[in-house]
Amino acid sequence: MEFSANDIAGLLGGEVEGDGSVKVNNVSKIDQGIPGTLAFLANPAYAKYIYTTKASVVLVNRDFQPEDELSCTLIRVDDAYASIAKLLNYYEQSKPKKVGVEQPSFISESASVGEQAYVGAFAYVGEKATIGKNVKIYPNVYIGDGAAIGDDTILYAGVKIYAGCKVGKNCILHAGVVVGSDGFGFAPTSDGSYDKIAQVGNVEIYDNVEIGSNTTIDCATMGSTVINEGVKIDNLVQIAHNVEVGKNTVIVAQVGVAGSAKIGENCMIGGQVGIAGHIRIGNNVKIGAQSGISNNVKDNSTIFGTPAFGHRDFMKSYAVFKNLPQLRSDVIELGRKIKDLDESNS
Amino acid sequence: MEFSANDIAGLLGGEVEGDGSVKVNNVSKIDQGIPGTLAFLANPAYAKYIYTTKASVVLVNRDFQPEDELSCTLIRVDDAYASIAKLLNYYEQSKPKKVGVEQPSFISESASVGEQAYVGAFAYVGEKATIGKNVKIYPNVYIGDGAAIGDDTILYAGVKIYAGCKVGKNCILHAGVVVGSDGFGFAPTSDGSYDKIAQVGNVEIYDNVEIGSNTTIDCATMGSTVINEGVKIDNLVQIAHNVEVGKNTVIVAQVGVAGSAKIGENCMIGGQVGIAGHIRIGNNVKIGAQSGISNNVKDNSTIFGTPAFGHRDFMKSYAVFKNLPQLRSDVIELGRKIKDLDESNS
Amino acid sequence: MEFSANDIAGLLGGEVEGDGSVKVNNVSKIDQGIPGTLAFLANPAYAKYIYTTKASVVLVNRDFQPEDELSCTLIRVDDAYASIAKLLNYYEQSKPKKVGVEQPSFISESASVGEQAYVGAFAYVGEKATIGKNVKIYPNVYIGDGAAIGDDTILYAGVKIYAGCKVGKNCILHAGVVVGSDGFGFAPTSDGSYDKIAQVGNVEIYDNVEIGSNTTIDCATMGSTVINEGVKIDNLVQIAHNVEVGKNTVIVAQVGVAGSAKIGENCMIGGQVGIAGHIRIGNNVKIGAQSGISNNVKDNSTIFGTPAFGHRDFMKSYAVFKNLPQLRSDVIELGRKIKDLDESNS
Repeated sequence: MEFSANDIAGLLGGEVEGDGSVKVNNVSKIDQGIPGTLAFLANPAYAKYIYTTKASVVLVNRDFQPEDELSCTLIRVDDAYASIAKLLNYYEQSKPKKVGVEQPSFISESASVGEQAYVGAFAYVGEKATIGKNVKIYPNVYIGDGAAIGDDTILYAGVKIYAGCKVGKNCILHAGVVVGSDGFGFAPTSDGSYDKIAQVGNVEIYDNVEIGSNTTIDCATMGSTVINEGVKIDNLVQIAHNVEVGKNTVIVAQVGVAGSAKIGENCMIGGQVGIAGHIRIGNNVKIGAQSGISNNVKDNSTIFGTPAFGHRDFMKSYAVFKNLPQLRSDVIELGRKIKDLDESNS
Repeated sequence: MEFSANDIAGLLGGEVEGDGSVKVNNVSKIDQGIPGTLAFLANPAYAKYIYTTKASVVLVNRDFQPEDELSCTLIRVDDAYASIAKLLNYYEQSKPKKVGVEQPSFISESASVGEQAYVGAFAYVGEKATIGKNVKIYPNVYIGDGAAIGDDTILYAGVKIYAGCKVGKNCILHAGVVVGSDGFGFAPTSDGSYDKIAQVGNVEIYDNVEIGSNTTIDCATMGSTVINEGVKIDNLVQIAHNVEVGKNTVIVAQVGVAGSAKIGENCMIGGQVGIAGHIRIGNNVKIGAQSGISNNVKDNSTIFGTPAFGHRDFMKSYAVFKNLPQLRSDVIELGRKIKDLDESNS
Repeated sequence: MEFSANDIAGLLGGEVEGDGSVKVNNVSKIDQGIPGTLAFLANPAYAKYIYTTKASVVLVNRDFQPEDELSCTLIRVDDAYASIAKLLNYYEQSKPKKVGVEQPSFISESASVGEQAYVGAFAYVGEKATIGKNVKIYPNVYIGDGAAIGDDTILYAGVKIYAGCKVGKNCILHAGVVVGSDGFGFAPTSDGSYDKIAQVGNVEIYDNVEIGSNTTIDCATMGSTVINEGVKIDNLVQIAHNVEVGKNTVIVAQVGVAGSAKIGENCMIGGQVGIAGHIRIGNNVKIGAQSGISNNVKDNSTIFGTPAFGHRDFMKSYAVFKNLPQLRSDVIELGRKIKDLDESNS
């Protein structure tokens, strides 16, 4: 499909500057722009590229002031980032959606599959599993006995949902996600070996949750591991048994959350953070990447380090850390001076 | 199934306090107790919930002294935690087990599959692979040529075992585990590119090992990467080529162990720890979460930090680190005072 | 197959010392050597094992000087490590390769598959996907619509390639790798929830790239996430949307690279490193394991720590850190002495 700059400006409530009849059929990044595409400028760090980009049309904020000549057509909008997001979503939604059951697939007789669903080849739907309307199940997905998948949810290739787990509506689980594997629970025995503690609970994922590829979420020992509405989890994250993640919390890649930890709402947890078991993290907490959290955290905290404390305090301490050899030399030098003073005094 | 408090007390050698005829058909957590379920109290931090729990029956230790009125029936046992573990295992074992071969699956003619095994749909068993008795192979599992799986082992959905690898008896491998992918071995060439070093060894996993979802274990360059008996590995752990993990060692989620490292017996390795290549870690070593281990570690050590040293020593240093800006100010202030003293002296 | 020490020396241009007629049919590690096998000695730390090894033949460097009697036959070569790598590759290449299409598999009518390819059972090839010559697609692999796989590439069991992604020639993707899952992009809304930003780009992987098991590489928001020629990526690594990794860079296990970061050529990135979004890392950079990189890094740097700075400087600061409680005591002691001096002065 092809659109003119005028068409796009109309869609976005924007204002054209330059040739409004120029047409585009794809998007590109401003620093890699190619003719016939639309780019955008939101981050000022990329402003320098607008003078040389080969993109035919560039979305900019209304207050953008060029400092040089431009060869592209501009579309001025209130928020260039929000506008490009809107366009990308139009584009994504215009793609045809998969519907129907490919063969061979395995759908147990006692399972139910809603209207307009897609079940890819080599997908497996266990006994008494319930699949909502318009659910997209890609190839090689496994859905265990009694699991439930809500309407409009997408399970990409190779997702595995253990028996009895529940996924809400309008969720997206990326390839290789595992939901409901056994929690890591063992009781030591007198000979140094461990007895397995059966993990008989499940995982409950509420609506509008997105989970990145190869992330793992363990079932509860008893009860449920809970991922609340609107949570966004990136790739390769580990969520242990009986964890609860609050509404609209964002968890970046490779984070690990140990058993029974409770994370509040609207938190932002940076990549590779580790959270110890049984602790509570309040609401609106921000945790810097790679931090280690071993104690409860109050609402609205911004923390960093292993073990973590206030982010700004950490950075002040770290600034001194970088010069510790100098500080040590200073202390030795002071010791020498005191010795001299002491001797000259006596 | 439904059991009375009296039935359960009989099973566990416990003593009923309250209505022994009350019936339960499920378990719950004490802080989320619901009528008709059994909860337990082992961790004193949860004691406050016993006075308000809606659970009908609560397992407690024999020495539990209530400080207020209770509406639930108590069962007093020697060890509430061990007893609940016993009950969960009864419950787990009472579930019907899958047996038989679902279609379509792919079992090579030269492969052997033992009695009472389950082979799920879309599972693949390569040439000359041997599958023991009572093995459970869930859908979408891949078992390469010549691989061997011991009796009573469970391979959950999407496990991949490369050709020639061996898994012992009574093991559990969770969804998405990869056993036997190539070790990361490359030889630099003069033009800056790398030549692959063929990885011709395998992985040997001994009996009673449990491995968490999406964990990866690479094959040896030559010989075997070895996971000894009773080892418990959590989710998303990386074990590189030629590593050996000692008997009954526990490895928490997202740990990475580099090539040829040898880890002793009965160690406990916290989440997200990194262990460098070619080092030796003794027996009974405890490593705190997120630590980085770059040197050999003696038996019975408890270490922490990156690079790691004694856990208590690290925490003492870290306490000073948190106040480093103050220490630096103190040193500057001392310098000023010495200068004053020096000037007043001269 | 069996070879004599003389045969092998001929193949490698080496010189036999001892019985050249002794035969071997496998390789072993020198510290675990068994009769009838060939071992090698390259790392001096393993030299002690040569006097007791049961291996029949040992490859050594030409300048090796035994300090005791040897029971094995030696083959002296210019570079024992390179020679064993050569032998392992001969061995690997002598194995029969899989060819043909196993059933059931799913190959869309509009897809094309090159000569001498292998398509394992339960593999899925989407519409208009193109598979080159001699490509090996193991069981349970998923290749989305319009994806392209270059000649001689191997996709091990359970690899998932999203629609529209491209993999070059002579690549190896290990089991469970995910290529092209959505980048982690969300726009906050006024009620605290997030709107998904459609991720319409793809991933382009160039020739001679190897990617370890369960690694995840997200597609670009727009344009491409790019893995350049000769890059080697280990297991469980996370590469976010719009990242570019330069030629011949090596990335060890469990590294995470955030969105739009650009990594130069010939870098070596240690295990569990985290790299922040939108930063640039120069060429020939070495990053120590577990480091956190939050700023641009110049060519040829060697850095360590979180946040990272010069590796040697970090280690000097860390040496002082280990003794911080002593430094603090010293400062307190100096304060006391100054107070004494001050008082004796007044």
